[in-house]
Amino acid sequence: MAKVGIVMGSDSDMTVMGKARDVLKEFGVEYEIRVISAHREPDVFFEYAKGAQARGLKVIIAGAGMAAHLPGMCAALFPLPVIGVPINTGCLGGKDALYSILQMPPGIPVATVAIDGGKNAGLLAVRMLAMEDEALQEKLKTYSENMCKAVQEKDRKLQEQQNG
Amino acid sequence: MAKVGIVMGSDSDMTVMGKARDVLKEFGVEYEIRVISAHREPDVFFEYAKGAQARGLKVIIAGAGMAAHLPGMCAALFPLPVIGVPINTGCLGGKDALYSILQMPPGIPVATVAIDGGKNAGLLAVRMLAMEDEALQEKLKTYSENMCKAVQEKDRKLQEQQNG
Amino acid sequence: MAKVGIVMGSDSDMTVMGKARDVLKEFGVEYEIRVISAHREPDVFFEYAKGAQARGLKVIIAGAGMAAHLPGMCAALFPLPVIGVPINTGCLGGKDALYSILQMPPGIPVATVAIDGGKNAGLLAVRMLAMEDEALQEKLKTYSENMCKAVQEKDRKLQEQQNG
Amino acid sequence: MAKVGIVMGSDSDMTVMGKARDVLKEFGVEYEIRVISAHREPDVFFEYAKGAQARGLKVIIAGAGMAAHLPGMCAALFPLPVIGVPINTGCLGGKDALYSILQMPPGIPVATVAIDGGKNAGLLAVRMLAMEDEALQEKLKTYSENMCKAVQEKDRKLQEQQNG
Amino acid sequence: MAKVGIVMGSDSDMTVMGKARDVLKEFGVEYEIRVISAHREPDVFFEYAKGAQARGLKVIIAGAGMAAHLPGMCAALFPLPVIGVPINTGCLGGKDALYSILQMPPGIPVATVAIDGGKNAGLLAVRMLAMEDEALQEKLKTYSENMCKAVQEKDRKLQEQQNG
Amino acid sequence: MAKVGIVMGSDSDMTVMGKARDVLKEFGVEYEIRVISAHREPDVFFEYAKGAQARGLKVIIAGAGMAAHLPGMCAALFPLPVIGVPINTGCLGGKDALYSILQMPPGIPVATVAIDGGKNAGLLAVRMLAMEDEALQEKLKTYSENMCKAVQEKDRKLQEQQNG
Amino acid sequence: MAKVGIVMGSDSDMTVMGKARDVLKEFGVEYEIRVISAHREPDVFFEYAKGAQARGLKVIIAGAGMAAHLPGMCAALFPLPVIGVPINTGCLGGKDALYSILQMPPGIPVATVAIDGGKNAGLLAVRMLAMEDEALQEKLKTYSENMCKAVQEKDRKLQEQQNG
Amino acid sequence: MAKVGIVMGSDSDMTVMGKARDVLKEFGVEYEIRVISAHREPDVFFEYAKGAQARGLKVIIAGAGMAAHLPGMCAALFPLPVIGVPINTGCLGGKDALYSILQMPPGIPVATVAIDGGKNAGLLAVRMLAMEDEALQEKLKTYSENMCKAVQEKDRKLQEQQNG
Repeated sequence: MAKVGIVMGSDSDMTVMGKARDVLKEFGVEYEIRVISAHREPDVFFEYAKGAQARGLKVIIAGAGMAAHLPGMCAALFPLPVIGVPINTGCLGGKDALYSILQMPPGIPVATVAIDGGKNAGLLAVRMLAMEDEALQEKLKTYSENMCKAVQEKDRKLQEQQNG
Repeated sequence: MAKVGIVMGSDSDMTVMGKARDVLKEFGVEYEIRVISAHREPDVFFEYAKGAQARGLKVIIAGAGMAAHLPGMCAALFPLPVIGVPINTGCLGGKDALYSILQMPPGIPVATVAIDGGKNAGLLAVRMLAMEDEALQEKLKTYSENMCKAVQEKDRKLQEQQNG
Repeated sequence: MAKVGIVMGSDSDMTVMGKARDVLKEFGVEYEIRVISAHREPDVFFEYAKGAQARGLKVIIAGAGMAAHLPGMCAALFPLPVIGVPINTGCLGGKDALYSILQMPPGIPVATVAIDGGKNAGLLAVRMLAMEDEALQEKLKTYSENMCKAVQEKDRKLQEQQNG
Repeated sequence: MAKVGIVMGSDSDMTVMGKARDVLKEFGVEYEIRVISAHREPDVFFEYAKGAQARGLKVIIAGAGMAAHLPGMCAALFPLPVIGVPINTGCLGGKDALYSILQMPPGIPVATVAIDGGKNAGLLAVRMLAMEDEALQEKLKTYSENMCKAVQEKDRKLQEQQNG
Repeated sequence: MAKVGIVMGSDSDMTVMGKARDVLKEFGVEYEIRVISAHREPDVFFEYAKGAQARGLKVIIAGAGMAAHLPGMCAALFPLPVIGVPINTGCLGGKDALYSILQMPPGIPVATVAIDGGKNAGLLAVRMLAMEDEALQEKLKTYSENMCKAVQEKDRKLQEQQNG
Repeated sequence: MAKVGIVMGSDSDMTVMGKARDVLKEFGVEYEIRVISAHREPDVFFEYAKGAQARGLKVIIAGAGMAAHLPGMCAALFPLPVIGVPINTGCLGGKDALYSILQMPPGIPVATVAIDGGKNAGLLAVRMLAMEDEALQEKLKTYSENMCKAVQEKDRKLQEQQNG
Repeated sequence: MAKVGIVMGSDSDMTVMGKARDVLKEFGVEYEIRVISAHREPDVFFEYAKGAQARGLKVIIAGAGMAAHLPGMCAALFPLPVIGVPINTGCLGGKDALYSILQMPPGIPVATVAIDGGKNAGLLAVRMLAMEDEALQEKLKTYSENMCKAVQEKDRKLQEQQNG
Repeated sequence: MAKVGIVMGSDSDMTVMGKARDVLKEFGVEYEIRVISAHREPDVFFEYAKGAQARGLKVIIAGAGMAAHLPGMCAALFPLPVIGVPINTGCLGGKDALYSILQMPPGIPVATVAIDGGKNAGLLAVRMLAMEDEALQEKLKTYSENMCKAVQEKDRKLQEQQNG
């Protein structure tokens, strides 16, 4: 049963949201992935968001561009954490999506990540699930060590190039 | 029966939205005025927006600050024109509300007016209703002539001061 | 007889404004389409905007880039609704056109849509005309249902890809 | 034993961060509250962030203004969720703190809330803890219902004023 | 006969535009000063701008806030230099007026000065008139020397304070 | 003898500044064109700007990108009008150059044109010279009529395409 | 003999620049302090900046608001480090000064500090002088330890308040 | 022994940071160059920054993009000058990195250069080292003269083209 719901306003958002999915796969976290538009099919959306907790979802990762209402409306209907991913769709550099997701009024929080930050959205969901899951905590530790090694390897190569 | 629905996310928005109401009063247009939050009471909101056309509303004027989802979600549920009023609530000068209202994805239009532009929201509603209402067209003509006279009066006074 | 006037400051704006025309065509709304510059031919422009109501226009959709004065000057001369389309022409991401169109002073409203939002400009005009036209209301309902189906189809395909 | 650590770069941040504390109190969630500067006492900070998980913290809420490195550096050292609160300290409207907290590179997520969004930071922490805590889920439901009632009460009053 | 026309969209702009007038007075340049709105009285405005050259004006200084069309529309109708003064009227810090004045399309130049830069608008007009007027050139030289002396006096005082 | 000095900080600015030169050529105005850097050769620059009036220059058109000090420093040393052209050199969309040129302190005016607005800089210089030159006024009138005709021609073609 | 020159465009900048002076006093570094305007007295300025190295200055701290050319022009004339302090003078939140100081073209570096960052400008000068001065390095160490203690004291007080 | 440490968060930053290295090479200044991430390997980073002074470094040049904490955290741990290079990595034009580096709180200065300003970072380091090194002062003088000649050569060529 899926613990994380990934939802996006348009299938073109998959370039960004696919990175969240990749992280969940890598950590072995069950997820479901949907294209649902709060604007174009409000009824479908309402049903999705209202039923999410009963379907077993612990976290929703919602990505959208422009006047991105999807994450905030999810947070209005789903009582557990919602992670919002602002997607850059053009001339405003993603600031339209960012403000539409971030600047939620008091009472309805959305956990916003960087513009086009699909990967960190996935990792944030994993960190939330790891709060009460020691196996995930272990995996996060290994993940962290691997990131560290990867930078050290790049550092080693750069020094070789520069000094070799 | 109300033709224009004025709706806002918080009663503190009345400083701005009250100007829309004043215009409607001045033009003798029937209106209803509500505080409804798309985030804090999504069910109430859905009912309001879905039932609006059946109640006889021809236009909705929706004002909100911050991540202002109210106008866009109205436009998703109500099939006639929605006028959005971005309200400046603080540190971003109203740009958060502006982008959240203006940058609607293709398919769901919101007629956005200036930040804190309650008065023009009212006038835009009147212009829409005037499309098929010659009496309102007459009133708009008079309104326009009065604006013109008011500027001319200010001009006359300034010239007196400067040259007197 | 045209009910909607589409006007733009330069023929290069057709990439954006053509989308408004497509919507009007799709809904069977009569329109006229013009290239008129408020800056380069103010007399031609004045005649156009002043005569618009008499020619039968109910709405004007005006698009322009940079210091976009066309929509606001239309709204000063034409008493019915003017829809403004800010066009992104370069280094400022369309914010110059946006502010020039959106931030109208009290008394002269312009219904502003998203930057490069030609399609929503067309739809907003249709919604305005639908206020007193039940046939258009029916068409809008069908349009809305089709949008909904299109998203659901994309959702179905994505789920197939992800789970298949 | 504290489950949530509230940490801020300066005691002047308490105007904002105190709202996070109030929410935790209201929900009966144990917390600790600290003033620690990543810049002015990096050693103290390192010890704090590295030892946080062992001390039993499940979530850190970190608030800071200007070049706000505290939340991001927490997320580099503490493996569970970090909530970042950008604090508006002056001439840039909080955008400096926002970008410093939000735009984390892939690998190190921070759950960013609105500028000066102390209250939502607290609620987000509660939602995270509620993922595996049914009692908290119940409290969130009640909280939600109360928000809804409060808006309805405001709506009732406004309608009385307007129509009375 | 006035050589410089000072025109503004609202009498509240006099706080800024009065500084332009003061400079013209100080240099003994004849001016006329008017409140004319391009939006609220387009006919009055057209007559003003079209007749300006015939009335003897060599330069127009036009100030306006928000979607400031006055300077650009002056430049469309008056063939000699137009100086635009963007006026800060609120939440966007004057950027709306700035972009509306500055970003004129090729063909119709406006000489834009700083936001609220009434004084420099006056000085720029004087510099233009001085191009063919040696007496004004002399006065500009004296003006310049006085500015220089004023700074030196401030420098002297500061050094006294600091070292005394 | 040159009446207009065109000066730029780098020869790469010619893409923009060449348009100013083209306008001057078209109007038969004598000009000189120079690459001078206020930062990289301050002595050369000082000599240029201080000697400009004596060499017969009536106007200087100065273009620069980034922290564009050239126009403002010209205006500090040359007593007649200086036209500033902000050049977009990259990641800030020309706003760095714009603010560096536009926001001159009281006392030292720069006539700023649009970002990359070389053409309007040339036309503004022509308008200034035309203040006391009836032949140039005639040419400006013709120029204006031609612009008008060009738009009308585009309008005619578009209407043919759309209705043909 | 002064090692650090503090220079500002206007005596009103002392609110910010006085903090740089306080730091230098506290560290016992000799300084001179001047009000000099690159725009209003370019000759005085040139003499100051060109003679600075010969007078013994090792660093210049230059502060200015708006189109802040002072730091960059100092860096063009003085071959050792120049520290630039962007001063917020109004409607643009100091971004005009920031871009005018920061975005120097390749070849002429300015060490820019935060908007209104007078104190850090002083500390940066001290750090530069400390590169070859062990006594200053000792003082910096003590300064650093005191900052650390001050935060710890605030932390202790907050914890008392919260838990007492 | 290296006097300047060049450090960056990712090896992809070399496009920008390589320009700093080139300057140091050109001036014959010893440097070391490293890829170290404050976020992904905080322990490695701490060791690097804390040990830098003992290893003989007089200046650190730190470059990073997005929420760029590397320069500021260096400045918290290394007592001598830190030069920060904001790197433009995408949709925000480098403003995220700029604010994260520039807006340091009082007490911890970072000498910030232009976005992607690797070359000026190198030159600023050279200027700092030149404060007590007459040989470097000589080289800077020559460098400066060569820049001047290069612009004059470009000027000569442009004039040939234009007048030839």
